[in-house]
Amino acid sequence: MKPLRFALTPGEPAGIGPDLCLLLAAEVQPYPLIAITSRDLLAERATQLGVAVTLLDVAPGHWPDAPAAAGSLYVWDTPLAAPVVAGQLDSANAAFVLQTLTRAGDGCVNGDFAGMITAPVHKGVINESGIAFSGHTEFLAELTHTEQVVMMLATHGLRVALVTTHLPLREVADAISAERVERVTRILHADLQDKFGIAQPRILVCGLNPHAGEGGHLGREEIDIIEPTLERLRSEGMNLRGPLPADTLFTPKYLEHCDAVLAMYHDQGLPVLKYQGFGAAVNVTLGLPIIRTSVDHGTALDLAGSGKVDTGSLRVALHTAYQMAENRA
Amino acid sequence: MKPLRFALTPGEPAGIGPDLCLLLAAEVQPYPLIAITSRDLLAERATQLGVAVTLLDVAPGHWPDAPAAAGSLYVWDTPLAAPVVAGQLDSANAAFVLQTLTRAGDGCVNGDFAGMITAPVHKGVINESGIAFSGHTEFLAELTHTEQVVMMLATHGLRVALVTTHLPLREVADAISAERVERVTRILHADLQDKFGIAQPRILVCGLNPHAGEGGHLGREEIDIIEPTLERLRSEGMNLRGPLPADTLFTPKYLEHCDAVLAMYHDQGLPVLKYQGFGAAVNVTLGLPIIRTSVDHGTALDLAGSGKVDTGSLRVALHTAYQMAENRA
Repeated sequence: MKPLRFALTPGEPAGIGPDLCLLLAAEVQPYPLIAITSRDLLAERATQLGVAVTLLDVAPGHWPDAPAAAGSLYVWDTPLAAPVVAGQLDSANAAFVLQTLTRAGDGCVNGDFAGMITAPVHKGVINESGIAFSGHTEFLAELTHTEQVVMMLATHGLRVALVTTHLPLREVADAISAERVERVTRILHADLQDKFGIAQPRILVCGLNPHAGEGGHLGREEIDIIEPTLERLRSEGMNLRGPLPADTLFTPKYLEHCDAVLAMYHDQGLPVLKYQGFGAAVNVTLGLPIIRTSVDHGTALDLAGSGKVDTGSLRVALHTAYQMAENRA
Repeated sequence: MKPLRFALTPGEPAGIGPDLCLLLAAEVQPYPLIAITSRDLLAERATQLGVAVTLLDVAPGHWPDAPAAAGSLYVWDTPLAAPVVAGQLDSANAAFVLQTLTRAGDGCVNGDFAGMITAPVHKGVINESGIAFSGHTEFLAELTHTEQVVMMLATHGLRVALVTTHLPLREVADAISAERVERVTRILHADLQDKFGIAQPRILVCGLNPHAGEGGHLGREEIDIIEPTLERLRSEGMNLRGPLPADTLFTPKYLEHCDAVLAMYHDQGLPVLKYQGFGAAVNVTLGLPIIRTSVDHGTALDLAGSGKVDTGSLRVALHTAYQMAENRA
């Protein structure tokens, strides 16, 4: 069996991503973990933070087989286009950020890496540079020629996947088609089996409307779209419960007996998850041929270089990626 | 000062409302609490449950000034139209149910009661009887000639009020008008002062769209409607924070410093609240000239007469009504 090895992209160089990677280097990881970013950036940020880290250069053909010692960090040096000041965005480095993602994604596809873990990028500054970019997820979908991906957030004890993600609320109802519900449910079910090692996943599905439509009085999408789709998928053997009212479903009575919740839209599913997770949630992209997890927070430009950052979400992202890769190995 | 006295409506006679009232009679309440329902119904259900309760008849002009002893329950006898079998709905008793609500509501208006606490009714069976009925809240709004009411759910440590309530999701965005946001915010603010004794309420307001619209990229209602409305109200001295992303707002960092959350719609605010409340939430109707609280669950027909019911939500509803009346007294 090939040794498992993981890529870590610190993302936006002016944000807290580099800080998080440096703080994390104090601990030994169970697998070799390779930061893909600028070596100089890490060295400067380490000085700014007062953190002692030994940076160990690695590159394709020279991958490590053992984890780095405590206080050391493997780096695949990827040069910046412009010097970085913590907290100050610079669109000159947009192509650099995307290069780090491409290196990580390609490395996952070609087998160099068993998975990639991403710290936050800043969408705005990449778009300002003239490169159209709507997020990690879409970028990696294109890189891997994947038509449909699914966003799932997870904490200890709760997983929530979304049928729709970053849509204005007024567009959500029209986006809930039978085809979309079916595709997303299939991906969620398959990835819970393949990447999470759950033989027969138990999925709770939310309705779209309050009270799951209350028998059609509060909307008909449950009757016309969701229920028939779930029924069809159940006939293939999937364990799907719902559509259930979201405010009933997210209670211990239901959650104790499920492996994942499928919410119809962003603010139906994520407030509970983030409330429950206390800032230590992981964002997992399902449907990709590769394993990708991410922190659930943003670049926090105002905290870059301050040392006042919480590595909680990154730790969960790392351990989730490790477990997913172990389940697949 | 007049003694405080409260009305309790057990609601649907075939549901768990009568059971909850009977189980509660084992404890002494801090104030006289008067169940408004059929005496015969309570006596039969007590036998079915094997609960020993002394039913004490009371009526207008003969109100008690002291709480009932443990094991006793004050009853304002209100006759059924048809005998009741636990678990079996009968539209013949629809008018009876509404009469109990009218008695409680009128008693609050005329000062006999300091507040009313409602157990669940069954909307469907009332409508089947030919009486148009969309819920307690609307019924009491009409009874008290109140134009706009606000639904708020509360648990220990969290209050969530809603700008829109029981609307199909596809109608929510159009319902978020500046006028509505302003009216609901004013009612929430005024009732937190008047009924909850909070001199300067701190209110967190959700955006409508994911990420609160992300600067207009994911919807413009925050920019066009919510933010200008909040700004206007802030200039009057209200402490309003937002519009904030719902999945950021419902985290301890924000919640620790607020008295209530204002969510734009049902499934944005209530899943977190019910998750946090573990089935012991109270539903409070704001904007009424009277105090009304309610359990947050339904009639649970399948559990009526079984003894397997949880009085948690009813207890919270009672104690919330007591506190609200004390703040007002």
